[in-house]
Amino acid sequence: MNETVPWSPQEFEAQLRALGSRYHIHHPYHQRMHAGELSREQLQGWVANRYYYQICIPRKDAALLANCDDREVRRLWVERILEHDGQAGGIEAWLSLAQACGLDRETVISQCMVLPGVRFAVDAYVNFVARSAWPEAVCSSLTELFAPSIHQQRIADWPQKYPWVDPQGLDYFRGRVTRAHADVEHALAITLEHFTSHAQQLRALQILRFKLDVLWSMLDAMYMAYVHGMPPYFNVTDA
Amino acid sequence: MNETVPWSPQEFEAQLRALGSRYHIHHPYHQRMHAGELSREQLQGWVANRYYYQICIPRKDAALLANCDDREVRRLWVERILEHDGQAGGIEAWLSLAQACGLDRETVISQCMVLPGVRFAVDAYVNFVARSAWPEAVCSSLTELFAPSIHQQRIADWPQKYPWVDPQGLDYFRGRVTRAHADVEHALAITLEHFTSHAQQLRALQILRFKLDVLWSMLDAMYMAYVHGMPPYFNVTDA
Repeated sequence: MNETVPWSPQEFEAQLRALGSRYHIHHPYHQRMHAGELSREQLQGWVANRYYYQICIPRKDAALLANCDDREVRRLWVERILEHDGQAGGIEAWLSLAQACGLDRETVISQCMVLPGVRFAVDAYVNFVARSAWPEAVCSSLTELFAPSIHQQRIADWPQKYPWVDPQGLDYFRGRVTRAHADVEHALAITLEHFTSHAQQLRALQILRFKLDVLWSMLDAMYMAYVHGMPPYFNVTDA
Repeated sequence: MNETVPWSPQEFEAQLRALGSRYHIHHPYHQRMHAGELSREQLQGWVANRYYYQICIPRKDAALLANCDDREVRRLWVERILEHDGQAGGIEAWLSLAQACGLDRETVISQCMVLPGVRFAVDAYVNFVARSAWPEAVCSSLTELFAPSIHQQRIADWPQKYPWVDPQGLDYFRGRVTRAHADVEHALAITLEHFTSHAQQLRALQILRFKLDVLWSMLDAMYMAYVHGMPPYFNVTDA
């Protein structure tokens, strides 16, 4: 391929979307979740660990705003913080999900269940955004391209596969199906507009791969702890 | 325990040393290494991933220097950078080890074998040091309290357990046995001097636990990839 010729916006978008093959929906932890094969403890572990991702997202978005000199972008992007932190926002909805799964609200908030590997992966995402030019930070949000299907799947699966979960708890996923569509449209438009040379387009793919690594790595830590039964220091007697 | 009464320096040091029960020498990946049970690919994977830790250490130490307003501390601490980056320094010795294990030098340097989970854990360490007051950064180096024994073990084990590794490659471990003793004496003295209240002493233990999490988490990622056979995207056909 001639490196000097950029892809058309359509081809560039197709290249970004093709990375959906790496989305964590294909991770064995998620495959087990989808198949209804997770134990109560394994599903709870996922919810309690994923909580750390939820609470870091508004900080990630604030870091992006802090680096962004485009008022129009900020005006739209700030909505994400409001939506997530609000009284009836994403973090509250996630805590409702946690309670619907039988977890104690304060235990989840204390982060005592968050695995180091999950923390390191999520922090890598926040740090990437804080240190990158804002269009790169926007690009790293594009895993939302693949999110609506995963939320839909959970709404459809869980009531049958995990009947012990209070179905009201699934409101988080219901809210995100609509919301993620609007968010990702904005992020995709910015990415297509700002990554114009072929080198920049390749960089965008690299950024999206990094973000996919973050999500995959979170599930790796959970698989290790809750499926392989090897949480940190599991074989240490006096830790 | 009365929270207002600090431990004596001896008791504080004993509390720090007690965390050695969490040292990665007890991780199943390392236990397999010690028992001679790692395959060639598994040992190579460890060396290639641990390379990322090696190259980040001088950056970590530079970040500490950048935050340190004590010239005497800097005068001693800068030696670590020189020792690691020098022509015959730690990074070169690690590359020799990699070659002794049959790895291609350029492949290792390219970092193409570094697993995302390893990268996120090591980056968490560098970021912690860059953002902390320098005595906290010094404290986080105290896993070296436990390092000499692990190096000794490798020097003793490997020639019998992994005869296919060129024994010259073990020079890295030989160098660290002596060096780590001097380094950790300095770091321990600083920690005992600067963490004086009981709350500060508890904070020091928390910092050391964080660093132990970093090392453990690195081996978790390698265990997942090379022992459980689940490297990132292993089940994805078109990634």
